[in-house]
Amino acid sequence: MITLDVALGDRSYPIYIGRSLLGKAALIHNYLSGKEVLVVSNTTVAPLYLDKLMASLEGYRAESVILPDGEKYKTLEYLNDIFTALLEKRMSRQTSIIALGGGVVGDMAGFAAACYQRGIPFIQVPTTLLAQVDSSVGGKTAVNHPAGKNMIGAFYQPKCVIADTDVLSTLDDRQLSAGIAEVIKYGLIRDECFLLWLEENMEALLGRDAAALVYAIERSCMNKADVVAADEHECGQRALLNLGHTFGHAIETAMGYGEWLHGEAVAVGMYMAADLSARLGWLETTDVTRVARLLERANLPVKGPRISIEKMKDLMAVDKKVLDGQIRLVLLKAIGDAVVTDEFDAELLDQTLQQCQV
Amino acid sequence: MITLDVALGDRSYPIYIGRSLLGKAALIHNYLSGKEVLVVSNTTVAPLYLDKLMASLEGYRAESVILPDGEKYKTLEYLNDIFTALLEKRMSRQTSIIALGGGVVGDMAGFAAACYQRGIPFIQVPTTLLAQVDSSVGGKTAVNHPAGKNMIGAFYQPKCVIADTDVLSTLDDRQLSAGIAEVIKYGLIRDECFLLWLEENMEALLGRDAAALVYAIERSCMNKADVVAADEHECGQRALLNLGHTFGHAIETAMGYGEWLHGEAVAVGMYMAADLSARLGWLETTDVTRVARLLERANLPVKGPRISIEKMKDLMAVDKKVLDGQIRLVLLKAIGDAVVTDEFDAELLDQTLQQCQV
Repeated sequence: MITLDVALGDRSYPIYIGRSLLGKAALIHNYLSGKEVLVVSNTTVAPLYLDKLMASLEGYRAESVILPDGEKYKTLEYLNDIFTALLEKRMSRQTSIIALGGGVVGDMAGFAAACYQRGIPFIQVPTTLLAQVDSSVGGKTAVNHPAGKNMIGAFYQPKCVIADTDVLSTLDDRQLSAGIAEVIKYGLIRDECFLLWLEENMEALLGRDAAALVYAIERSCMNKADVVAADEHECGQRALLNLGHTFGHAIETAMGYGEWLHGEAVAVGMYMAADLSARLGWLETTDVTRVARLLERANLPVKGPRISIEKMKDLMAVDKKVLDGQIRLVLLKAIGDAVVTDEFDAELLDQTLQQCQV
Repeated sequence: MITLDVALGDRSYPIYIGRSLLGKAALIHNYLSGKEVLVVSNTTVAPLYLDKLMASLEGYRAESVILPDGEKYKTLEYLNDIFTALLEKRMSRQTSIIALGGGVVGDMAGFAAACYQRGIPFIQVPTTLLAQVDSSVGGKTAVNHPAGKNMIGAFYQPKCVIADTDVLSTLDDRQLSAGIAEVIKYGLIRDECFLLWLEENMEALLGRDAAALVYAIERSCMNKADVVAADEHECGQRALLNLGHTFGHAIETAMGYGEWLHGEAVAVGMYMAADLSARLGWLETTDVTRVARLLERANLPVKGPRISIEKMKDLMAVDKKVLDGQIRLVLLKAIGDAVVTDEFDAELLDQTLQQCQV
């Protein structure tokens, strides 16, 4: 088992990465403060892993609430189902919430924990690669609004993150690739050595080689923990983790949440960011090809769906990085070196949006 | 103008109390960080005071959203109207929210500020006595759930509180009395000198004597600020501010939110707490009569509506003070000296609930 730390003073917490962690009752108990637990999961994950987790909660009053699976249910309305479950089961302020699922479950369970009785503790047990390498770490929780992704939420840190790599064996291929998109992101924004490793080990990852997966998760979480520790509330460098996300969120919102997986939309968005960076003269054409090649090897798209340029820009203007009415984007000064900037020609952005559609 | 401070380290903020503050543009501008403002108000307050506040926001991109008036609209559903307004008007993370209204508006606008884009700044401009003396100070924000009051929310401090006493001239008598209930609360839990002052000046308060109102607001806010500074997240003494609230919230929930005003339900709850304290031998019967007399002079009820004892206890079990399945209540060791305790005979609680109904 590997242990990493997210260093946030009195809100610091560990990330555990390894096999069979769902069965390690004593490990989990360390992070439960009271005797009541509500497990939040979804209709895909619960049949596979809920019993196993519940067995590790013997001696606790453990209840569960099962949400429908998918990004389109990441709404205030379904969030309320968690509150209703907590209240119907008379769960007190000493209750801990455990998020057992992917990014949607983690975001919703974490946000519910942030709000129930104005804040109760929670634990992340991510069951997708995307959640294990990205969304479960760093305390960003949220639900979507029809007009914008992740627009309603809280910065709220978990007590720990438990990434059991065994659960990845049941992840479908499309979800695995979506997770790899966020893994590639770390290489592109700040870790070119990792990118080189990914270029050498993409087949092992896709083949679910255990050692390769553990290394990719560990290195991703190290990158994420570093950035979060330096800038918890995204006043500066944390925004770099948003590479591809302004484009990606616009695609997700335009297509209807869940039509495109988040990682797929981010893959296209990263390609768009590389393309625009090249148009600005920051990247070579060979760099853009390199990005495309790696994404394609991960079975990820690099071209987005047909959406009018006006609509894309309209949706991109609903973004947490907007400052003084200006869209700001994460772009690449070089492979492994990202910046947040509003210094791009509007014409070049139009060209990128035009060029990077199917 | 009187200035008080809520001492919370880097989250400290001032409370301004005085006349004509809505028109003091420079004062308000000091607490706006960006150039965008969303004013949240309701259908009762907006026609009276929105224009005045908007005039003080000249030079800003100021928008407004008007909620229906009343506790029954303090829900996730109407909270979403604030998010929709923010998104439709393309308000960025640099936007400040101003809550212009009573406790419901303040709670909802504050909670929306806590959640929009994971947190934007906000200012409290309370327009009821209850909001000026209590709910606008201390950073408790929330919405109700059908199963329990204030169960979904956040601790989120405003940048400042601006209590313009001129606006109390348009407050209806019932709302004025409801506010006085929370004023009396401070006297009962920790400030017997203030209680004596209230006993001498109740007629002046009801007659809206300007000096009396300002003094009552100032002294209430001093008490509140003291308690909040010592225990922001209610790990200890802040719970004392809940005197009468476990009973009161149960009445509000049972009757349907808004049927009883919060202050009215709290008045009955404080009388119940005094009654139970006397049954426990902590208060004299004369103390209980003293409490009843003062509440009645403020035109507040001391007897609750007919609700079965079982239902009352069931609703009282949905309370943030519940610990290990036990209802905990704020009771009075003496007038001016409250405690949080679960050491009361269940039989005596039943007697109190039985006795204190119409």
